[in-house]
Amino acid sequence: MLSISHRGHIMPTSPIRKLVPFAEAAQKKGIHVFHLNIGQPDIETPKQTLDAVRNSDFKILEYSHSAGNESYRKKLIGYYAKSAIHITTDEIIITTGASEAILFGLMACMDPGDEIIIPEPFYANYNAFAVEVGVVVRPITSTIDKSFALPPIAEFEKAITPKTKGILICNPNNPTGYLYSKEEMEILKQIIIKHNLYLFADEAYREFCYEGSHTSFMTLTEVENHIVLMDSISKRYSACGGRIGALITKNKEVLNSVMKFAQARLSPPGFAQILGEAAVDLPDNYFDETKAEYKKRRDTIVKRLNSIPGVFCPNPGGAFYTIARLPIDDAENFCQWLLESFSYNGQTIMLAPAGGFYSTPGLGKNEVRLAYVLNVTAINSAMDCLEKALEDYPGKISI
Amino acid sequence: MLSISHRGHIMPTSPIRKLVPFAEAAQKKGIHVFHLNIGQPDIETPKQTLDAVRNSDFKILEYSHSAGNESYRKKLIGYYAKSAIHITTDEIIITTGASEAILFGLMACMDPGDEIIIPEPFYANYNAFAVEVGVVVRPITSTIDKSFALPPIAEFEKAITPKTKGILICNPNNPTGYLYSKEEMEILKQIIIKHNLYLFADEAYREFCYEGSHTSFMTLTEVENHIVLMDSISKRYSACGGRIGALITKNKEVLNSVMKFAQARLSPPGFAQILGEAAVDLPDNYFDETKAEYKKRRDTIVKRLNSIPGVFCPNPGGAFYTIARLPIDDAENFCQWLLESFSYNGQTIMLAPAGGFYSTPGLGKNEVRLAYVLNVTAINSAMDCLEKALEDYPGKISI
Repeated sequence: MLSISHRGHIMPTSPIRKLVPFAEAAQKKGIHVFHLNIGQPDIETPKQTLDAVRNSDFKILEYSHSAGNESYRKKLIGYYAKSAIHITTDEIIITTGASEAILFGLMACMDPGDEIIIPEPFYANYNAFAVEVGVVVRPITSTIDKSFALPPIAEFEKAITPKTKGILICNPNNPTGYLYSKEEMEILKQIIIKHNLYLFADEAYREFCYEGSHTSFMTLTEVENHIVLMDSISKRYSACGGRIGALITKNKEVLNSVMKFAQARLSPPGFAQILGEAAVDLPDNYFDETKAEYKKRRDTIVKRLNSIPGVFCPNPGGAFYTIARLPIDDAENFCQWLLESFSYNGQTIMLAPAGGFYSTPGLGKNEVRLAYVLNVTAINSAMDCLEKALEDYPGKISI
Repeated sequence: MLSISHRGHIMPTSPIRKLVPFAEAAQKKGIHVFHLNIGQPDIETPKQTLDAVRNSDFKILEYSHSAGNESYRKKLIGYYAKSAIHITTDEIIITTGASEAILFGLMACMDPGDEIIIPEPFYANYNAFAVEVGVVVRPITSTIDKSFALPPIAEFEKAITPKTKGILICNPNNPTGYLYSKEEMEILKQIIIKHNLYLFADEAYREFCYEGSHTSFMTLTEVENHIVLMDSISKRYSACGGRIGALITKNKEVLNSVMKFAQARLSPPGFAQILGEAAVDLPDNYFDETKAEYKKRRDTIVKRLNSIPGVFCPNPGGAFYTIARLPIDDAENFCQWLLESFSYNGQTIMLAPAGGFYSTPGLGKNEVRLAYVLNVTAINSAMDCLEKALEDYPGKISI
């Protein structure tokens, strides 16, 4: 019997997607499902950017430069400068989504068996990419009671071994929505200097900060060679399907190495680079409206959640996710029950059990992640469902 | 000092792209460079397929299904059936180019330290993907004197160890253009049965066969679970920049495993899936014209090459590459000299030294790969240059 690889066996399944068959079954029964489980925004992709693709007039869809079209990288310099990130075209490598930026960053900097520290809960696919490249994730736990703030420095020190090569931080955070403070960034800076580590910064949600503004890890001084930025236009312009991201660093050795990985896969997607380039030309106030919309949604969902007896939800500073603690025995059961056995006015909700975002077994058992990617009316209806569901759910516990 | 990974160090640089700076310098001097070094076709992408993207009218560029749009996969069933490949939508996973299909196939089936046998010379990026996933390439040599036919079965037997998990075959072959016969496919079938191996089949050039027709490894009986097909629309429709490929297999365990890798990177590029889907609707005779054009080019380039004293070039049965042996000391030097020190009527040519396609050091030293991706007039001018260059080159040797 032919066997698949050990890597193929231990590769995690998506915690977000495994409830999909239950959602499909609910929909077949005629129940409307509010999808708060996945970060697919309902915001329209800016018309100008789609038009740029639709009005293109080339005759051959050729390979682009392996680092992405030079015209696009040139424009991005201006985009990043607005966030005080000052780079050259040679310091940007356009990738197939942030996914590929993460993969390239890990492969260029780390070998199988090397360790990376990530505050949990974290974006579940970090685990997947770590498995792909043989890197070991060492989680340190951030807690809902502290609003998922950076764990104390002592926790980092405990987790660091001779094999530790980096720390991965998503800011603002998916799945918690937490926005790291400048003080916390300073703490991280001291750790990476002291232990000579890379800091991989996933800043895909840069524009979506509701309390204060975003500071990029790329702006930290003295540690330029330590920072590897992983970026994406997916959420920024509601262009998830384009698959355009970027890896950015000042570290020349890392750049040279990443370029070899980029050349092996020839080039990033062509059409969506045109979209990305057009997006840089959107007016400066483009994000105002989107941000205001997300803030309204956040305010609504957080208020509604905290008004339900036994529910606790911190106020997330950015991104469009939040994690809530529910008065339930088990979030996996609850989320499945919502789809299989519950409806209210012909509606139910799909949530992501938070356990899949923790690396330590057992954590997040009564927590769920909610993506506020629906409008306020839909969010209110979804919260009506959740409120009712928590009255009816047989596995309810008191907290 | 922060260090990059060992993997990053040993990752090979592209043998095709490292002469680029010399080509750029030649162009700056006003010399016209005929690019026979890279498989970027000059054939126009079919207008209907570009129009499908340009006429699309969705408002949100959403993630597609991780396996690719179902509508696209459904249509592909019809496309593959024409090549006697009978599959279901669940047996196709749309990938970001064949590159990602190769990566996913290797990761799903093989672990670090496992070995894969590939007849050399081979597509240089196979080495790159092997390094990425920690797989060891065991080359067995095919020779220009035998037109790069499959090496004898004894060579496979010698190369097989307890760690061997697969054989990778590109048919028709890049870089040799060799089209494997049904007898050779039968030999491979017996080997994979006897030693319980995967056969990874890269058939990106399926449509471009000039002597006889193409038979897919997917049509072999008794070994359905052993075959993993890696495919691409890049060359088929001259759509290299779209980055759309596919991994196809009947092996359910491999499919389930590959789906986990596919889910981790969320989805393949959106726009180019629309292009790919439209391409399936091209008339059945679409390839006739393209194939006739490539055949004319092949006939021209092979005839011209063999008419140059000391040059030998087998007649390749497919794809749009050929490898020629030249009366020179060192192809790396020669190719650089062509760009740095030579011109004829203000023109020169860019070729790929074949050494980069061999895994065994020293092989292919006086061979070059030529991609006949230019029209017959350009090919004739390029051959005029080559003929003259071989008269002038200081490192000429007699063969």
